[in-house]
Amino acid sequence: MTQHPFLSAEKAAALAERFGTPLYVYDEKTLRANAAACLAFPNAFGLTVRFAIKACPNAAVLRLFLSLGLHFDASSVYEVRRAMLAGVPAEKISLSTQELPEDFAELLRGGVKFNACSLDQLERFGRAFPGARVGVRFNPGMGSGGTGKTNVGGPDSSFGIWHEYAGTVKEILEKHGLELERIHTHIGSGSDPAVWQKAALRSLGMVRLFPTARTLDFGGGYKVARVDGEKTTDLQDCGAPVRDAIAQLAEETGRRLHFEIEPGTYLVANAGAILARVQDVVDTGASGRKFIKLDSGMTDILRPSLYGAQHPIFLAKKPGRAVPAETENYVVVGHCCESGDLVSCAPGEPETLAERALPRAEIGDFCIVGGAGAYCAAMSAKNYNSFPESAEAMLCENGEMRLIRRRQTLEQIVQNEIA
Amino acid sequence: MTQHPFLSAEKAAALAERFGTPLYVYDEKTLRANAAACLAFPNAFGLTVRFAIKACPNAAVLRLFLSLGLHFDASSVYEVRRAMLAGVPAEKISLSTQELPEDFAELLRGGVKFNACSLDQLERFGRAFPGARVGVRFNPGMGSGGTGKTNVGGPDSSFGIWHEYAGTVKEILEKHGLELERIHTHIGSGSDPAVWQKAALRSLGMVRLFPTARTLDFGGGYKVARVDGEKTTDLQDCGAPVRDAIAQLAEETGRRLHFEIEPGTYLVANAGAILARVQDVVDTGASGRKFIKLDSGMTDILRPSLYGAQHPIFLAKKPGRAVPAETENYVVVGHCCESGDLVSCAPGEPETLAERALPRAEIGDFCIVGGAGAYCAAMSAKNYNSFPESAEAMLCENGEMRLIRRRQTLEQIVQNEIA
Repeated sequence: MTQHPFLSAEKAAALAERFGTPLYVYDEKTLRANAAACLAFPNAFGLTVRFAIKACPNAAVLRLFLSLGLHFDASSVYEVRRAMLAGVPAEKISLSTQELPEDFAELLRGGVKFNACSLDQLERFGRAFPGARVGVRFNPGMGSGGTGKTNVGGPDSSFGIWHEYAGTVKEILEKHGLELERIHTHIGSGSDPAVWQKAALRSLGMVRLFPTARTLDFGGGYKVARVDGEKTTDLQDCGAPVRDAIAQLAEETGRRLHFEIEPGTYLVANAGAILARVQDVVDTGASGRKFIKLDSGMTDILRPSLYGAQHPIFLAKKPGRAVPAETENYVVVGHCCESGDLVSCAPGEPETLAERALPRAEIGDFCIVGGAGAYCAAMSAKNYNSFPESAEAMLCENGEMRLIRRRQTLEQIVQNEIA
Repeated sequence: MTQHPFLSAEKAAALAERFGTPLYVYDEKTLRANAAACLAFPNAFGLTVRFAIKACPNAAVLRLFLSLGLHFDASSVYEVRRAMLAGVPAEKISLSTQELPEDFAELLRGGVKFNACSLDQLERFGRAFPGARVGVRFNPGMGSGGTGKTNVGGPDSSFGIWHEYAGTVKEILEKHGLELERIHTHIGSGSDPAVWQKAALRSLGMVRLFPTARTLDFGGGYKVARVDGEKTTDLQDCGAPVRDAIAQLAEETGRRLHFEIEPGTYLVANAGAILARVQDVVDTGASGRKFIKLDSGMTDILRPSLYGAQHPIFLAKKPGRAVPAETENYVVVGHCCESGDLVSCAPGEPETLAERALPRAEIGDFCIVGGAGAYCAAMSAKNYNSFPESAEAMLCENGEMRLIRRRQTLEQIVQNEIA
């Protein structure tokens, strides 16, 4: 693929001319298509799709998803407030957080749904809202990572209430007259349907323990392929065993569970790109490397430096320049004074240089970094080297190019410093 | 060590009471001592110590160092402007950057010194300032990392002008009548004096090629021990061979080189700490793990997640609670909904859980993460999960606790979004 799916060289030049670089660019059409795919997730008795706000919290993205019928998963009380500022009704927001601050009660009083993610959270919720309905996030005892590695399920994960504490959960529910209406399990299982089947059965085991539960929330973790060789989760494939297990439960017990999923990456990853300028091209001699230096980097996209994540990189010539037939092998680096600011790293190896074959690059050309809709604007080494937050734009379905976030100013970077 | 060197349990409680948590805390006394150590770096004919702003750009820190006689190394034009906003005179700032934006000339006209870090930068400087004096950053062809790994010197580094292009540099200098007054080499060599000696000789080789050079800038990269088993660079040990090489050059040629260093970590790392609250304590059963959840994490300190960096962690009991005699082994995690938000990782392995023996922790206690003065407030996954930038405070020598940066508000996080 020599051209980015939604960001042609012409559009890149027009966007750069109008809004400058670096620029996050989101594509409305792709966002809509992704939402439709998630809303078609297999389910037996109804489905709620919650967008994981943390993946891409811009108000324009939240509003678009709201208009398409999505609900929202907030990972902090700040995300709850941010979604509400963007116009999302409280009852369409569900909070599952590692940190429940002291003033949570006021926020939840407005109708925000809540999954208690620790025994202490459940206890505090019970004290604040005796007799209320509540969700509980369990750690089902299995995850998708290796032992001793960071993980969102299993004994090495801090997320959710350890499944062996179901008895303690019952005691707390009883003490405060709470009704457990929703069970949340998130195992970050990715794309293997066999793992999904196992996780589904495990989760339904938790549901059986709590007869009042009417909703099963399966969290997110659906993968997308950003580059060749990666695999996009087939939502139909992985949803089918869960749907079947839910249908089976209904046959056995008459309980017709509502189903929820919380995709982030799946909804936005490939709907976003970073438009950067080639601001220098250097080399280290005949037996060395050729480097493209972007006016972007870990300040906009941290995933390569953090995970060794692979993002497709496209070169778009500056208008008026011919596209050279031949390619060269380039290492693509960011603008930070940091050796780890490497965009073209080896898979899973943030510090290992990898080369990308790109048309011969000159200063002033553009680089488009694809797959940058999720955990890029949302999770970057913002302001490192005092570079400002980048602007964000939406390519609307009607052809309009709309600025949805202005570039930060230096004055804003230091606005909270006290002289 | 059971207590943080400058942040006692009493001070922690007082700071949290006054400014809230999470809070960066800097210690003026330690900052002063570190500055004095750097100003005593071995040198033959004069020394300039430039603080690498990117390590900790808060205006209060910049001003303190300014008052102590330090100069400044800026890694971007934004850092130049930021330092000037803080009151640093232009002539005390030196810019060595991966990205030289189009409007650089206006900025340099004020007297900011400049090291050209690529042939294109040198050419553009020459066009803007024919006849001027300039510095050049060379990549001396050797670095301290392995082949194929990110590095600040050697063929796998994009930093500086490849040493084989010295001839091209001469042509550009001549074309624009520039005088090369300063040679910059930064090899990130850390603490091995033998590497330093080799690098010094290599750099002096570059100096011999350019008879007009009067200053040798050796960059930064001086390491500090944050935890047991790590080694702090002995500045006297590593500076001596460079001083001797410079003295030798003077004997041979009569050239008395001024010497510059650009420490960042060395000046601030152990002068800063993060004061966080223990906001939850959870476990995964009898054969599982015990976790401490902080109200901080990768949003304030990214180094563990990015490099597997080791930071000392201290537990300070909430006032009124007795300090338990026994310790327990805890995994310490951050507040983000991200499995990689792990503060107590294994050395060099960001995703591998490691345990720290700490006094038995309860919700409401404090955790103090040490060694957090460098590349923490400056380089974090700011605003991930929409958590606000944390406040910063200075423990002044006179005992005063001074807020030097207010906590960000949610309204500020979204202030550039366009409805």
